[in-house]
Amino acid sequence: LVKGIGDDAAVIRPRGAAELWALTTDLLVEEVDFRRDWLEPGQLGYKALAVNLSDLAAMGVRPTFCTVGLSLPRDITGAWIRRFYDGLNTLAQPRGVSVIGGDLSASPAHIQIAVTALGQSRGRRVLYRSGGKPGHSLFVTGTLGLAAAGLKILQSGTTANAGAACKLALKRHCTPEPRCEVGLWLAQSGIVGAMMDLSDGLSADLPRLCEASGVGAEVHASRLPLFSESSRWGCDPLALALHGGEDFELLFSVSPRRVRTLEATYPVQYPPIQYIGDLTAKRGIYLISEEGGPRRRLPRLGFDHFAAR
Amino acid sequence: LVKGIGDDAAVIRPRGAAELWALTTDLLVEEVDFRRDWLEPGQLGYKALAVNLSDLAAMGVRPTFCTVGLSLPRDITGAWIRRFYDGLNTLAQPRGVSVIGGDLSASPAHIQIAVTALGQSRGRRVLYRSGGKPGHSLFVTGTLGLAAAGLKILQSGTTANAGAACKLALKRHCTPEPRCEVGLWLAQSGIVGAMMDLSDGLSADLPRLCEASGVGAEVHASRLPLFSESSRWGCDPLALALHGGEDFELLFSVSPRRVRTLEATYPVQYPPIQYIGDLTAKRGIYLISEEGGPRRRLPRLGFDHFAAR
Repeated sequence: LVKGIGDDAAVIRPRGAAELWALTTDLLVEEVDFRRDWLEPGQLGYKALAVNLSDLAAMGVRPTFCTVGLSLPRDITGAWIRRFYDGLNTLAQPRGVSVIGGDLSASPAHIQIAVTALGQSRGRRVLYRSGGKPGHSLFVTGTLGLAAAGLKILQSGTTANAGAACKLALKRHCTPEPRCEVGLWLAQSGIVGAMMDLSDGLSADLPRLCEASGVGAEVHASRLPLFSESSRWGCDPLALALHGGEDFELLFSVSPRRVRTLEATYPVQYPPIQYIGDLTAKRGIYLISEEGGPRRRLPRLGFDHFAAR
Repeated sequence: LVKGIGDDAAVIRPRGAAELWALTTDLLVEEVDFRRDWLEPGQLGYKALAVNLSDLAAMGVRPTFCTVGLSLPRDITGAWIRRFYDGLNTLAQPRGVSVIGGDLSASPAHIQIAVTALGQSRGRRVLYRSGGKPGHSLFVTGTLGLAAAGLKILQSGTTANAGAACKLALKRHCTPEPRCEVGLWLAQSGIVGAMMDLSDGLSADLPRLCEASGVGAEVHASRLPLFSESSRWGCDPLALALHGGEDFELLFSVSPRRVRTLEATYPVQYPPIQYIGDLTAKRGIYLISEEGGPRRRLPRLGFDHFAAR
């Protein structure tokens, strides 16, 4: 065992094995993580695997195998199950991920999905949440708040006549794109300190990276890659970028003297990366609203599974 | 990938690794697999891991790691979760199994548990359902129908003043004993053909072994290790041995010329093994009621997850 509970995935090194192996399990529960009328069976299959592959991407490892545990109410048909697996395989096959096992059980009321994914490192290079150091620059991939903006559309019930921005947001919510290639590239680059994926929102996830690394952080609001189009349907793009969950983008830290190397070598065909702030020796997570302006503590408003417990 | 879907666990061989690794996922769903008033949280934790370790035992591999996915309704307390893990660790720790990750989610109504277990072979010796040949002698470990007899007691609601036999049956139902050591020993012995665990009852599981091996089978009713005490509380011991699920005993086949070696070398401190019949070239599963008597087809009455689908 190389790394146990507390990172995006556990890491083991089978005796004699050339590579490290990472293992992660994620649940998707109806009425908690999704609604059946919001996600097609195929989207659900895709998403159930995507959230696990995102955990492996966050370690910088390549996904290889998965198992699928499905607990299904009686009204779910065989056709539903086939569409679920078709959607899952849409994501799995192009990435070389094989479904190698699982379990299928009845459920008294709700669909519950448990996917376990297994991946292997390349050259034993694995990234952890704990690799951050004071002074490191913080980066994210892609756009923040997209998936949450899509969720707002679904919650409002007005998906008809949706424009391109709406469709993009819906797509990101229903079939999130795990950053497998980017994660692997960043681990291979040798210049990344800490890395994790953004599943519960920056304001909930960044403290986890900081805690594991024993640092604090300052985030520049003006640097966040916002999804500004969401303001058209009444969203606050900054609030969604800070607190919206399920973006499944990567958050990572780089030593300031390696930032130029990162920017010079990062493949142009990959999703854009954006500098958003810095890790600090002083603990606590702060948001700087404007250049040179005051900073305030960033409240932890991201998705909390135990908020109601 | 050495073995995919269709056995008790999937088997992989990480590049360069000294050993084969087996991976299995099993679900336990409230109101389907258990009732909250029948199982203490600690028993549930124990059982959730036990059903997975039994799958690994059936491959002859040693359990090493597990992940735990828990989806819990709001009325489940932190104390309940601690008791669940205490029970799980009662089984895990003495066997050297580490909980290395998992997921904890809310649930709208029912408890759902998804455990994934990972184990490694010894000397790359792994047993499959497909290793049976016509003429092989069939053996089982322990007693059949014990867990089902325990379930009958719970269903009748009369657990007070239960005698020793009742207590034994209840114990087997609530905290089944995965045959890890026996499975490993049998794989190491080099004399076993096919092996699997009995989770859904002999009449449901034996056809799976036969199908994987391309054979049929004859079972001698008089040879089955019955739990005859269950007749005291109105059970039919033979019916429970044939069709009762959750015994988690091992079913395995041995070439007739190796049976003496098996019986001479099988460790006395292990649970007893019993010859129950033979694999046949002719397909179909038959039950012979008495020596020299007629044989009839064994109906498949064991637990079927899809009976109602």
